[in-house]
Amino acid sequence: MKVLLIGASGTIGKAIANELEKEHEIIRAGRNGADVSVDNTSVESIKNMYQQVGKVDAVVNAAGGANFASVSELTPELNEKGIESKLKGQINLVLLGLDYVNDGGSFTLTTGVMMDDPIPLGSSAAMANGGVKAFVKASSIEMPRGIRINSVSPNIVQESWSRLGKFFAGFDPVPVERVARAYKKSVDGGQTGQNYEVY
Amino acid sequence: MKVLLIGASGTIGKAIANELEKEHEIIRAGRNGADVSVDNTSVESIKNMYQQVGKVDAVVNAAGGANFASVSELTPELNEKGIESKLKGQINLVLLGLDYVNDGGSFTLTTGVMMDDPIPLGSSAAMANGGVKAFVKASSIEMPRGIRINSVSPNIVQESWSRLGKFFAGFDPVPVERVARAYKKSVDGGQTGQNYEVY
Ligand SMILES: NC(=O)c1ccc[n+]([C@@H]2O[C@H](COP(=O)([O-])OP(=O)(O)OC[C@H]3O[C@@H](n4cnc5c(N)ncnc54)[C@H](OP(=O)(O)O)[C@@H]3O)[C@@H](O)[C@H]2O)c1
Ligand SMILES: NC(=O)c1ccc[n+]([C@@H]2O[C@H](COP(=O)([O-])OP(=O)(O)OC[C@H]3O[C@@H](n4cnc5c(N)ncnc54)[C@H](OP(=O)(O)O)[C@@H]3O)[C@@H](O)[C@H]2O)c1
Repeated sequence: MKVLLIGASGTIGKAIANELEKEHEIIRAGRNGADVSVDNTSVESIKNMYQQVGKVDAVVNAAGGANFASVSELTPELNEKGIESKLKGQINLVLLGLDYVNDGGSFTLTTGVMMDDPIPLGSSAAMANGGVKAFVKASSIEMPRGIRINSVSPNIVQESWSRLGKFFAGFDPVPVERVARAYKKSVDGGQTGQNYEVY
Repeated sequence: MKVLLIGASGTIGKAIANELEKEHEIIRAGRNGADVSVDNTSVESIKNMYQQVGKVDAVVNAAGGANFASVSELTPELNEKGIESKLKGQINLVLLGLDYVNDGGSFTLTTGVMMDDPIPLGSSAAMANGGVKAFVKASSIEMPRGIRINSVSPNIVQESWSRLGKFFAGFDPVPVERVARAYKKSVDGGQTGQNYEVY
């Protein structure tokens, strides 16, 4: 299969590439993507990426950010990053990519544990995660041509613990390889409308 | 208690007002609000509303829309209505309203059954509902001054059946008074971080 992987150079993206490249051809995308560059906050940039890449069997996204801020400090402006990147960035990869995915292909998006097990400063990211999860479930019932859609909800991963652990007091970080296998389940399996929790 | 009710003239808003006005003072808001006018898609308009209204004990929102479109027809542009109105419109009422809610007060937002029991054409609304639900849960853990936050997730209501029933094949519509009681539970009760499903 031909797999377009956005966020391929990231902590989770690299592990996904390792897991999938054994059996599939990976096209690596990101703002500084090895194969194609894309900024998922720009509709034009997403369109350009798909035009360059052409037809694929799977689109996997492991990119998207949100600002960390307490609800008292969060402003509509600070909340925009989560809206533009983690939420719309992912949804637009689907809306603009449908015509580029072959029959029976798939989309796999990324949510995260913070929507289920909230942490201080996490409400903007949780909002975006919850939006993506609900979109995946709802859109799965009307995907054309046998196309499937799922999301993966990673716990904080061990490989990000030194950078992010301070925000996740008492969490039990998971190996990034476990997270990567959930993306493989989505790409190579048969399920749709799922949010795979790797907690 | 002083309750600011956005969407007071709507099907659900009127039922909430009927339920709450027995014991509380209601300030009715909407684009053509009886007491104060607000367009929840505009940050400036929300700020103006709060400046006019001043301190309240509860903010209840029953306004917000999204476009109905199949995922094949949904575009980033059509998806904006759900983002601006149903999602950001509600979140911004919280972010901009925190300083206007008295100690121990509450916010109550509106989600909907479509995120849990998807219908064709509903992925944009489901996305917004899921974002609001996750924001409510995550932000509840760090609300200042004992302020609570919940959402109500109504099933399709009997009073909207003639207008919307065609989208909800096989659903069992609920009386709007049942939905209104969930808002009362949020305003007069003690829970926080909940999404009350009235299904
Ligand atoms: N790490 C964790 O423990 C964890 C846990 C739960 C959820 N998540 C979520 O999983 C996703 C990936 O996390 P990560 O830790 O692997 O992130 P990361 O190491 O920071 O990598 C991010 C990747 O996304 C790309 N990227 C960033 N902004 C982009 C944009 N605007 N457009 C296109 N590509 C962009 C980056 O490449 P370029 O710089 O070249 O653009 C990079 O490849 C994020 O949504 C994160 O919130 C992570
Ligand atoms: N009806 C149902 O069965 C049902 C089921 C599940 C969820 N919901 C959700 O519950 C909410 C209310 O539904 P409803 O059926 O009661 O709606 P409705 O009858 O159409 O009433 C909408 C209310 O919101 C106000 N409003 C609309 N746009 C606004 C804006 N931009 N800014 C501020 N106020 C605005 C309207 O007043 P003005 O025209 O004066 O602005 C009106 O008071 C919606 O979010 C809907 O998706 C409804």
